[in-house]
Amino acid sequence: MPYPDEFEGFIINEIGKHQDFKKQSFKPKKFGDNDIDIKIEACGVCGSDVHTVTGGWGDAPAPLCVGHEIVGRAVKVGSRVKDVKVGDRVGVGAQVWSCLKCPQYTYGAPYPKEVDPNETISQGGYASHIRCHEYFVFPIPDAIPSHLAAPMLCAGLTVWEPLVRAKVGPGQQVAIVGLGGLGHFAVMFANALGAEVTVISHSPNKKDDALKLGARHFVSSGEKDWAKLLAFEFDFVLSAADVLGMSALQDYLSTLKVGCKFHSVGLPDEPINGLKPQQLTSNACSIGSSHIGNRPECLAMLKLAAEKKLFPWVETIPISEKGCAEAVERVNKNKVHYRFTLVDYDKAFGV
Amino acid sequence: MPYPDEFEGFIINEIGKHQDFKKQSFKPKKFGDNDIDIKIEACGVCGSDVHTVTGGWGDAPAPLCVGHEIVGRAVKVGSRVKDVKVGDRVGVGAQVWSCLKCPQYTYGAPYPKEVDPNETISQGGYASHIRCHEYFVFPIPDAIPSHLAAPMLCAGLTVWEPLVRAKVGPGQQVAIVGLGGLGHFAVMFANALGAEVTVISHSPNKKDDALKLGARHFVSSGEKDWAKLLAFEFDFVLSAADVLGMSALQDYLSTLKVGCKFHSVGLPDEPINGLKPQQLTSNACSIGSSHIGNRPECLAMLKLAAEKKLFPWVETIPISEKGCAEAVERVNKNKVHYRFTLVDYDKAFGV
Repeated sequence: MPYPDEFEGFIINEIGKHQDFKKQSFKPKKFGDNDIDIKIEACGVCGSDVHTVTGGWGDAPAPLCVGHEIVGRAVKVGSRVKDVKVGDRVGVGAQVWSCLKCPQYTYGAPYPKEVDPNETISQGGYASHIRCHEYFVFPIPDAIPSHLAAPMLCAGLTVWEPLVRAKVGPGQQVAIVGLGGLGHFAVMFANALGAEVTVISHSPNKKDDALKLGARHFVSSGEKDWAKLLAFEFDFVLSAADVLGMSALQDYLSTLKVGCKFHSVGLPDEPINGLKPQQLTSNACSIGSSHIGNRPECLAMLKLAAEKKLFPWVETIPISEKGCAEAVERVNKNKVHYRFTLVDYDKAFGV
Repeated sequence: MPYPDEFEGFIINEIGKHQDFKKQSFKPKKFGDNDIDIKIEACGVCGSDVHTVTGGWGDAPAPLCVGHEIVGRAVKVGSRVKDVKVGDRVGVGAQVWSCLKCPQYTYGAPYPKEVDPNETISQGGYASHIRCHEYFVFPIPDAIPSHLAAPMLCAGLTVWEPLVRAKVGPGQQVAIVGLGGLGHFAVMFANALGAEVTVISHSPNKKDDALKLGARHFVSSGEKDWAKLLAFEFDFVLSAADVLGMSALQDYLSTLKVGCKFHSVGLPDEPINGLKPQQLTSNACSIGSSHIGNRPECLAMLKLAAEKKLFPWVETIPISEKGCAEAVERVNKNKVHYRFTLVDYDKAFGV
């Protein structure tokens, strides 16, 4: 059955078999008065998608359609929807609903019975359509092309949120650890917010990219004593690195000014062992983490990105069984420069 | 040789032999233009003293005179000292000098050559006198008796600092973990700053004390699911507990509101293993630590304590070889209610 009864997507039928995307149809949740149906035209490929389909973050329900950096056009709006009209270009990130106590993630989470009698499991954006509560649907400014807006909705927001909550701005020294999908957004945003940005990376060959993205300084963390030279230097250190050991953490902490924070948006599979509160006392620093951000923060990020043309560096891949598999595999192997967006949805799903 | 050439103190001659206090004389650092000599009349017994003389925090120089919660009278002031006169009652905490890059701790730290040609190791307050830079000498308000002022200068300041830096105040829910020397100060201060205070303790029998000190609620962390009932409850959690495992830490973190902080002023000997940034994402919380505080914070604390009569619960012990040994042993075994101050200095050292 075609839309609106069913959606079509590229689906993983067994967690761990992360290369076996199959084009299949699935039933969306019951349409609600605050819901919006979006015909998708672009979806970013997020590290979360990879951690989920490989099983790296633990089990997940299958069959599953991942993808939570979604841009498309509203094709149906519920009777109580206020700010979106049919035809509007809109985006959806990693959240599609909330009971106001817990978030409802964009894919892999069953809706509670009171919202959907079938307790449908949410499905993501490697698909023809998505159905989503209006609160989590964001108008996309005209200045941002869809394939560039998509990665902002998870990756962009995930680094934007800690930067603004830490009140990063002019006069501040900010370090970004790790120049990948998240890190490259963080450099652009921290620079646009007015801070003087230093990129700390294990890959000396990323220096040129770091400077092009707006960093003023580049530090190779492979060099001996790099951290000693930067003791008490930074107002904020944002780590987007996917690996974080105790020794590296101590180095990063030592570069903070008194009372300042190390914040990891990288979520490594391996835990940190050997932490002592003592290690935080010499500069009264703290360690934090977070993911995504709220609606006002997302709207503010899109506005600034549109005004200042802060666009991610994106490679596009036409969506297909093969295309999804290739994108996931390359993100898994860190072979992306710096973000993939799946495109050509019309061709894959018919117009 | 008597004062001013030498000071006398109760000294540990070998780290680890923490019961062998001997009355001995020692040479102070060279007197500087900004220095003040204080004839001591009271000194608090701090957990740091115990960790140091037992070797629990690692090696320390010996012979060593510990003690960094010192109150006495100024008996000599350097030519450039501005705010203290001979005869003033003053206090000294855990710091006696700074190069403005690193702190100089009150005991066990060699002065740099440019300050003292002999590179004298600093010695603490289980002694007749202390010599200290004026910046680290605090006038004691008349309303606070010496034996009650002493414990404020390390224990009090150590919990005051994180409370004020976290902007604890009216309308906030604040939890204090562990009701001991530090914790009992934290309850008084957080309450005086206007927060609604909850004490979280393993010892149900401390409930009465908690409420007397100003807590509104008492939670026994031995009870099953205590943390679930307090999910997303607190604006700030200050831990003064001397033991902190990963499982307890996760419980404390889960009680924080979004974006709020768990701050440990307890410095356990054992490290925390198994921390993942993921564990901080659901409420975007952070983990911090610190010790003591700066001069303006210390002066503000003393002012409020004098105004509101926020006095610690103190047992006094006459200073002597036996008295020092007893105090250290009882603090080590957590048999103090809630703080010891060594007194009767005139008798011990002669007038």
